[in-house]
Amino acid sequence: MNHQLNDPNLKGVEILSIGTELLLGNIVNTNAQWISEELSSLGINHFRQSTVGDNGNRIGNLVKEISLRSNLLITTGGLGPTPDDLTTEAIAKSFNASLFERAYLWDQMKKKLSNSSANFDNPSLRKQCFFPKDALIINNPRGTAPGMIWAPIKGFTILTFPGVPSELKAMWKETAVSYLKNNFSDGYAFFSNILKFSGIGESSISDKIGHLLKLKNPTVAPYANLGEVKLRITARSKNELEARNIIKPVKEELQKEFAKFIYGENDDNLSSVLINELLKRKESLVFAESCTGGLLSSYITSIAGSSKVFKGSIIAYSNEIKQSLLNIPDDLIKKFGAVSQEVAEIMAINAKEKLNSDWSIAISGIAGPAGGSKEKPVGLVYISIAGPNDHITNIKKMFSLTRNRTEIQKLSVNVCLNSLRLILLSNSK
Amino acid sequence: MNHQLNDPNLKGVEILSIGTELLLGNIVNTNAQWISEELSSLGINHFRQSTVGDNGNRIGNLVKEISLRSNLLITTGGLGPTPDDLTTEAIAKSFNASLFERAYLWDQMKKKLSNSSANFDNPSLRKQCFFPKDALIINNPRGTAPGMIWAPIKGFTILTFPGVPSELKAMWKETAVSYLKNNFSDGYAFFSNILKFSGIGESSISDKIGHLLKLKNPTVAPYANLGEVKLRITARSKNELEARNIIKPVKEELQKEFAKFIYGENDDNLSSVLINELLKRKESLVFAESCTGGLLSSYITSIAGSSKVFKGSIIAYSNEIKQSLLNIPDDLIKKFGAVSQEVAEIMAINAKEKLNSDWSIAISGIAGPAGGSKEKPVGLVYISIAGPNDHITNIKKMFSLTRNRTEIQKLSVNVCLNSLRLILLSNSK
Repeated sequence: MNHQLNDPNLKGVEILSIGTELLLGNIVNTNAQWISEELSSLGINHFRQSTVGDNGNRIGNLVKEISLRSNLLITTGGLGPTPDDLTTEAIAKSFNASLFERAYLWDQMKKKLSNSSANFDNPSLRKQCFFPKDALIINNPRGTAPGMIWAPIKGFTILTFPGVPSELKAMWKETAVSYLKNNFSDGYAFFSNILKFSGIGESSISDKIGHLLKLKNPTVAPYANLGEVKLRITARSKNELEARNIIKPVKEELQKEFAKFIYGENDDNLSSVLINELLKRKESLVFAESCTGGLLSSYITSIAGSSKVFKGSIIAYSNEIKQSLLNIPDDLIKKFGAVSQEVAEIMAINAKEKLNSDWSIAISGIAGPAGGSKEKPVGLVYISIAGPNDHITNIKKMFSLTRNRTEIQKLSVNVCLNSLRLILLSNSK
Repeated sequence: MNHQLNDPNLKGVEILSIGTELLLGNIVNTNAQWISEELSSLGINHFRQSTVGDNGNRIGNLVKEISLRSNLLITTGGLGPTPDDLTTEAIAKSFNASLFERAYLWDQMKKKLSNSSANFDNPSLRKQCFFPKDALIINNPRGTAPGMIWAPIKGFTILTFPGVPSELKAMWKETAVSYLKNNFSDGYAFFSNILKFSGIGESSISDKIGHLLKLKNPTVAPYANLGEVKLRITARSKNELEARNIIKPVKEELQKEFAKFIYGENDDNLSSVLINELLKRKESLVFAESCTGGLLSSYITSIAGSSKVFKGSIIAYSNEIKQSLLNIPDDLIKKFGAVSQEVAEIMAINAKEKLNSDWSIAISGIAGPAGGSKEKPVGLVYISIAGPNDHITNIKKMFSLTRNRTEIQKLSVNVCLNSLRLILLSNSK
């Protein structure tokens, strides 16, 4: 690959992941991937990643080794209160530095834990407040263990973070980004614009944009997730305005080519896009869920402010509740089965009426692993969307046999959200 | 941790992942995790993992470096036909070895690709057949690129695999497992038993089991996740029976010490444990959710077979639906507010009755970021559980200010599930 990262003359930046659970294969190292993406977007090239266990000597030796070839090291893991948490201690020891308590950190920690059952006489808790004298502290807005920015020798700086992803990310955004921008960026930075796709697969996209995937500035890279593809357009430039100009023609070409498949950009997700659209239209939304069992509702309510458009749902997991709360006639279920277009449609119509909403989505299907038959196999899902002026859209989906229960539920939710998005798009108010 | 992996006297085994896409953060390194687990189950200790990009010099230098401290190296990535695929070449070069074509591999490859549009005059395809003279070939039953087993110097062996997970796994199982067993295993393997905790923090557990955390066989290691802690007890032994005997006394001590905090083992989660308990009691469950907006229901319905105990829910996100579907009196909401113990309790009682169930859980709270006040801040959650014989349990929770919306929703769900689990435990049928 012709990427800048492969230039052998650039100085070294490294990531070190610390944790025996990584060596045992208990967990996947998603932190290294997340930091890699972040460094990339800051225009900081890194060349090497390492992982070691919770062993003080190994940690210390490896950090020393890295200090001989690199000028920046990002570590994750080993900052907590337990005896396995050895990172700060091991790093300090390898540079013959002592640790000193920061009294204000201990006060902060007691405050943070005031609602918990933590034992403040426990020295293991307190050890999280000890750092080398000249280290800067990285505040942890999501947990107790702070990190540090420390230059033990000239030309070598270490940034430490906990292994808990939510804490790492919050600390990174609050402190590390601006520090790294000011101290380790060469003036050029990477600016990215992500386009998000729904209803089309990665290979169908890649097939059509071979020429764009070969570009050098901006670069275009596809990432596929369950039921969704994103294209990251990345420009290397001195400032954001220049980057936007580099990105613009490529973005416009993609928007023209894929129009309605592109549902949003950057931090958008299908739920947030849908909520914003409904907000604009001043229309409300409810659900009648069977096979997704609350997952569709939880996607919508994960978004702050969703209460302005979402009123509620009936999770009719049993046929009894389909009858009692959604008034689905018993003989309709008997005739067509609970998993049928007929039942899904009445679920949508009745939910819309009963919950007094502008739009409703109903879903009934077979998520498996049991419950399938030859006529109605696992992966068969019926969706019905009811809207103003007796609008009804019915959708039948048959997911691949390779999909498991969780995937079928998540993919179904995606289809529900994207289908309503497309309906609103073609019924603009 | 005193895990065997941390013993500094053991000889080195390492994993090297090769691919610029890893350094860019385009993909998560699931291969390293998979190989780690495999090595663990073979009883082979590895101490270090590294990742580098598709750069011949960096790959070669790193392999040379590893050969000085370790006796076994597993590499993934860089075996394919593209110009970025440099692994075999770079390794050979760093030991001054030449590559020779294996004619039979070329024949095999042409056969494998006979149905494809591959161009056999293309030298890049053919380069996958070149290996050092004395290397053993690892057949690739799932793709074109073979790997190798090669000892470039005495006491140092390299096994190479492609980066495509399905190819790596097939080659590992077909060739590597028996090779490693015969050449690198000492006959001992690791066996683990995980205990899962709810309602207690990692530091509170660690405080009480300092002596267990120091054990060498079995080792005991804590892992913390949002709202849940697990302890992994790992024995090193010749067979599973022996391992069970090594684990037994430690497990019994933990079960005695933490009794009701331990909700399950290994693959259990709070939902599956609760469903199994209700199945045994032949009792049903429904929810009335406000602030969790469907998440509680989705946790339960993510478990296959949940329909045997879970009938459904009312997601009453708006006050209108609290009134219309759950019959919460308007003046009660006006007097106490929708987020109150009084409203939560009536939600639970009415949901139980309306959805005709043995148990119901109702939850109302402020997930934020908006909607909080001085009296009722973000993070305040009321839970009410209604059961047979007019059983009512009311729970008030105040989550830390550091928690965001998603965390408050997930932690609330954990409290709901664990609270009902404990009620069932103390009301055994």
